[in-house]
Amino acid sequence: MRRLLVANRGEIAVRIIRAARDLGISTVAVHSEADADALHTRLADVAVGIGPSAASKSYLVADAILAAAKDTGADAVHPGYGFLSERASFAAAVADAGLTFVGPDAATIERMGDKVAAREVARAAGVPTVPGTPGGVADADGAVAAADDVGYPVMLKAAAGGGGRGIRVVDDAEALRTAFGQASNEALKAFGDGTMYLERFVTRARHVEVQVLGDGTDAVHLFERECSLQRRRQKVVEEAVSPGISAQTRDAMTAAAVSLCREAGYRSAGTVEFLVDDETGEFFFIEMNTRIQVEHPTTELVTGVDLVAEQLRIAAGEPLRFAQDDIVRRGHALEFRVCAEDPEKDFLPSPGNVGRVTLPSGPWVRCDTWLEPDGKVPPYYDSLLAKVIVWGSDRTEAIARSRRALAEFSVSGIPTTAGLFAELLDQDWFASADFHTGTLEQWLATRGENA
Amino acid sequence: MRRLLVANRGEIAVRIIRAARDLGISTVAVHSEADADALHTRLADVAVGIGPSAASKSYLVADAILAAAKDTGADAVHPGYGFLSERASFAAAVADAGLTFVGPDAATIERMGDKVAAREVARAAGVPTVPGTPGGVADADGAVAAADDVGYPVMLKAAAGGGGRGIRVVDDAEALRTAFGQASNEALKAFGDGTMYLERFVTRARHVEVQVLGDGTDAVHLFERECSLQRRRQKVVEEAVSPGISAQTRDAMTAAAVSLCREAGYRSAGTVEFLVDDETGEFFFIEMNTRIQVEHPTTELVTGVDLVAEQLRIAAGEPLRFAQDDIVRRGHALEFRVCAEDPEKDFLPSPGNVGRVTLPSGPWVRCDTWLEPDGKVPPYYDSLLAKVIVWGSDRTEAIARSRRALAEFSVSGIPTTAGLFAELLDQDWFASADFHTGTLEQWLATRGENA
Repeated sequence: MRRLLVANRGEIAVRIIRAARDLGISTVAVHSEADADALHTRLADVAVGIGPSAASKSYLVADAILAAAKDTGADAVHPGYGFLSERASFAAAVADAGLTFVGPDAATIERMGDKVAAREVARAAGVPTVPGTPGGVADADGAVAAADDVGYPVMLKAAAGGGGRGIRVVDDAEALRTAFGQASNEALKAFGDGTMYLERFVTRARHVEVQVLGDGTDAVHLFERECSLQRRRQKVVEEAVSPGISAQTRDAMTAAAVSLCREAGYRSAGTVEFLVDDETGEFFFIEMNTRIQVEHPTTELVTGVDLVAEQLRIAAGEPLRFAQDDIVRRGHALEFRVCAEDPEKDFLPSPGNVGRVTLPSGPWVRCDTWLEPDGKVPPYYDSLLAKVIVWGSDRTEAIARSRRALAEFSVSGIPTTAGLFAELLDQDWFASADFHTGTLEQWLATRGENA
Repeated sequence: MRRLLVANRGEIAVRIIRAARDLGISTVAVHSEADADALHTRLADVAVGIGPSAASKSYLVADAILAAAKDTGADAVHPGYGFLSERASFAAAVADAGLTFVGPDAATIERMGDKVAAREVARAAGVPTVPGTPGGVADADGAVAAADDVGYPVMLKAAAGGGGRGIRVVDDAEALRTAFGQASNEALKAFGDGTMYLERFVTRARHVEVQVLGDGTDAVHLFERECSLQRRRQKVVEEAVSPGISAQTRDAMTAAAVSLCREAGYRSAGTVEFLVDDETGEFFFIEMNTRIQVEHPTTELVTGVDLVAEQLRIAAGEPLRFAQDDIVRRGHALEFRVCAEDPEKDFLPSPGNVGRVTLPSGPWVRCDTWLEPDGKVPPYYDSLLAKVIVWGSDRTEAIARSRRALAEFSVSGIPTTAGLFAELLDQDWFASADFHTGTLEQWLATRGENA
């Protein structure tokens, strides 16, 4: 691998460029019109404009990206997260063009991206899955019949869905019947596939995910991340490792993730997501993400392993550099996603012109960002401004440092979510890690009432 | 400890404020006129102006600092490095005012600050010292007589000196006779004490230092730092751990440092400096620094221990939190001191107005700085702008990341030494760690000729 095209923007594009540079690989940035002067565009060795500002006309146009790769002599493409990162057709097109796709092959992306097929892989690997229908249900009658076995409350999910879209929780047969047609139609529109399936809904659930690396033959895990603090099913704060599972659960869950990875012949970095029933400690496979995750730095700070560099090495054909025993964790890491959203206006996106920017720094604080002074937050993309990632020798120390780091963060010109985290860090339930996937939204609602 | 006055400026004041904040201790900054709007001044909870810009009228005025402590209700004082940090009289004055001095007591500072007394402590602890006179020599005749035993080349050093001032290397008796009176007079003027002593001069010497923590009873080491890359006896690049000593030398040297620390009843963070004969592997105690060092972050990145926080805990009366086995090192760290100096003009200091500032960031890069966009580098103080500190799982990875990090560093308006490091990183002797205390200056001289 000599020259890598980074098919993304924002902080992850910057992150990937840095990893490539560390390995002596030259870099090609692609950018939309809005990003013509963005940090990732300037930081890369070469930059190519690929279209107008709307992602659908630039970052999502596979042909434009492949043309840029050809024009600049790139021999590999890193898709980052979001955009084209989990589209099997893109991975296939990259390979067909004779380039290296930094990720698993198209067949694996397709299989793991189909929630029904992915659960079959999990079952074959002996990994527990959430009680649910083995595949899609044909219609509302079929759903109601199946739900009796699964047990209420049940979740109705789109087989092709993602990011929390197309999901409904229903408490009884009547509600399920009402929801089915509507949800299926929405899924058909959004994903081109109306297939729905059912899963048991766990009331107090944690979202815990295991980071894996596989080279197609062997696989290792890099422990887990706790991602239960979500708003509208989007992660807001993540940590490595989970403060809410036992050592036994950790051992079993990480072993399950490695089994699944081996069963799939997985080759790249990936994340195996689990739902943990906080009352029983049971864990169930939810899905596998076949790309780098937003929250990957927490794992990096705890293990000392550069996950993006490992993706590049594996894509270049190298075998895994680690046996499981080589992966040793130290301390605790937290990540806070600072977004251009106004927490006082129901998280309304707040794009616009930025003035002064002060990013937190100093001991054990890492800030992954694309934000610069006197810059502009375009309205076209996701609202992530910066990830503040903090390490401590234990969770208490990491929390204390996070408080300091977040207090140093300031951006003038637009509202951000940074201030909210200071409040969050002072909550007893956060300090004691007594939370589940519904806790953050409950707190935000209460906070509104108390304010 | 509730409120800490930070008796310093620049990056170390910022560093100390952050550590205090992490421990829930409120902070008082003191500042000169030139630093009225400096980062450390704004970052602290309270700030007090203590005098005009010249350090002799502000940061070196103990009474002004103690008055600021009294006025703001501070109960402790951290001296940082430089300025008053190794003046026993200041430590005594802080204690006499009923405040906690963050460092060893005045008697220890005095004893370890006197090079002759410090060597006596080392000998009592069984730590090898450089062959030399046991104490000061009376006059030029005494020096010449003593030098026959020590062996030429010898170094003539001021007992009260520091930072490389007042040192001369001579090859024979005639040169020694000539140098003695001049050096003694200079020492009398500079330090108020003309006492001189002699030491063997090691031609190919490494400067390696061991970080220690002591609580007055027990002591641990946090491995060593390699500090051989110096210009005019000022460190320029440091690393943890040393790439130039054997595991045996490491074990013996760190054990020696702990013995010395125990012998001295040392209480705080400290650094035991050794000279290593690169040809024989012998090591000799040089001196002990009784304060935090500029290069302490390299040790922090390798051990995960916050040295400033530990200083504060020990000063507050806590016993050591670590047994030796708890201190585990991981990977390798490099530090580059970026200064406001012009490497193309013999490192002429380059104070002035700064425009745009881009600091390196991202994975495994820490930048400790006081520098801000549209700021000003005052001409009154040392020229250190920023420390770029980089971690890697091994030295090769740390070097690759350093190259990337230093390439991202940019400051408009004034020349800096950042660009020089990119060249340095490409030298074979740097990659292979084949260097000694004279190497950097030799390279700088050659570089000038080749340019």
